[in-house]
Amino acid sequence: MKFTFLEIIDILGVMAFSISGVFAAMEKRLDIFGVFIIAFVTAMGGGTLRDLILGNTPLFWLTDKTFGWLVFSSALMAIFFRKYLRNFRKTLLLFDSLGLGLFTIAGMQIAMRYGLSATACIALGTITGCFGGILRDITLNKIPIIFEKEIYASACIVGGVVYLLLLKTTLIREVADVISICVVTCIRLLAVRFDVRLPSLYRSQ
Amino acid sequence: MKFTFLEIIDILGVMAFSISGVFAAMEKRLDIFGVFIIAFVTAMGGGTLRDLILGNTPLFWLTDKTFGWLVFSSALMAIFFRKYLRNFRKTLLLFDSLGLGLFTIAGMQIAMRYGLSATACIALGTITGCFGGILRDITLNKIPIIFEKEIYASACIVGGVVYLLLLKTTLIREVADVISICVVTCIRLLAVRFDVRLPSLYRSQ
Amino acid sequence: MKFTFLEIIDILGVMAFSISGVFAAMEKRLDIFGVFIIAFVTAMGGGTLRDLILGNTPLFWLTDKTFGWLVFSSALMAIFFRKYLRNFRKTLLLFDSLGLGLFTIAGMQIAMRYGLSATACIALGTITGCFGGILRDITLNKIPIIFEKEIYASACIVGGVVYLLLLKTTLIREVADVISICVVTCIRLLAVRFDVRLPSLYRSQ
Repeated sequence: MKFTFLEIIDILGVMAFSISGVFAAMEKRLDIFGVFIIAFVTAMGGGTLRDLILGNTPLFWLTDKTFGWLVFSSALMAIFFRKYLRNFRKTLLLFDSLGLGLFTIAGMQIAMRYGLSATACIALGTITGCFGGILRDITLNKIPIIFEKEIYASACIVGGVVYLLLLKTTLIREVADVISICVVTCIRLLAVRFDVRLPSLYRSQ
Repeated sequence: MKFTFLEIIDILGVMAFSISGVFAAMEKRLDIFGVFIIAFVTAMGGGTLRDLILGNTPLFWLTDKTFGWLVFSSALMAIFFRKYLRNFRKTLLLFDSLGLGLFTIAGMQIAMRYGLSATACIALGTITGCFGGILRDITLNKIPIIFEKEIYASACIVGGVVYLLLLKTTLIREVADVISICVVTCIRLLAVRFDVRLPSLYRSQ
Repeated sequence: MKFTFLEIIDILGVMAFSISGVFAAMEKRLDIFGVFIIAFVTAMGGGTLRDLILGNTPLFWLTDKTFGWLVFSSALMAIFFRKYLRNFRKTLLLFDSLGLGLFTIAGMQIAMRYGLSATACIALGTITGCFGGILRDITLNKIPIIFEKEIYASACIVGGVVYLLLLKTTLIREVADVISICVVTCIRLLAVRFDVRLPSLYRSQ
């Protein structure tokens, strides 16, 4: 079995988001079945919306069993190792940010295959990156992370622009992939760490 | 007008979920228009998501008027007979469980037509069965029933496995249908009645 | 650049809903990025669900850049002029009602192209008109406007019936368009102004 680089990014993204789903679900004390559902929703949400938008059906996770098993085993692993983790919130943030970066670039690559414009590629990358987390939070009855004060979708957009610029250089594509993924993930992590926010539209209260 | 057995299951499922939608909406004291919308959302939600996943568009309820009228008349009936019912919650539970069983098996049969794997068939049956109720609860701003403590999607999965096993026996297909529908509905009802829950991941509080 | 009348209706609808999205988002004090997302969700929600139902993919706003820029510039304008407006709620109501009328008729015209029945055309028009606002309110964690006490989807249905009747007269199509749009918008505005409600199913409390 040989994987393309895009497939590897996709697999790592699915694993990262499954794990983030598990921790978000355990924070809300869902039963074991609910934990698996949230893992699946988080990991498949972005790709599902992307493919619905593109009209790319039957959806990939229905025809390709790999994804179901990947979510299942990642979730199982996360559940098993939960005892060794002190801080659910930080683990959740880390894996959420990783998934965000991986899926943004994976989504952009698929958009480019469809010959979409630069703006549309960035939009589709951002949707692929963000929607799993949005769906996870809506399903868990939380205010979606995207509307919290910290930078979220903005990280995808910056990473997307960086990616398109890098592709115009002489860099090998895989290197451009890795750099852009790191850009998205790091912006997100640094924004939370240093509490960076977008400028406010309102007078301070 | 002659119906296939699948069509009969589908019709009964639509009626059951329409009625469950009416009672859920009346519990929240929605106006008459809201009650009809929730009935429609509950009855069509599962099949809609199933067909979006399969790429089976334009959606059935848009091209086939039967479904609209079926929801309308079932909802009207439920509204009319509401005075004779003492316990909205129990009625809601009964019809929700019935719809769950009927739609799970209907969804699986459609998945089998697409030549999907056993796992994918069970997944699609579960989605068809559960999504109407999830959408109903989200729209009514309640925590989706699927995340409540009792067995819900698990009933669909068990029923789906039973169905696939029964199809391998010499049983007539229609008999396998009826048995599996009963399995899903009964598991759901018994789980609520005897308060059966999935094992907890957390230390007791 | 010449536009058809349907395109003009669509453009005005997108602008109206973008603005309504901006005001709804500012009421909840979202950051500037959140405001743009809500504007986009509100303006594109109805058409997106309509096209998903019809299987009309890749979605229009991905392949046609006009829509993205239209939302962006309308939202920017609304943000800029926010200081000159006293009453966010009234402005939100006005633009929401305008968008409702415009999108209902635009949705019906597209449904007619697909040769759908009268009932299906009205249903699709209502969905196109209402779903942007529903999505806006769900994303902002509010109870969807459609379930508030005032007339909302009913206005679309009445307007849809009026539209189909007008098309059977000798009126020019564009005139029928404008009258029906006004019907929807005015019903909605008058219903809020005079607090008209649908008859209640429940004994008064």
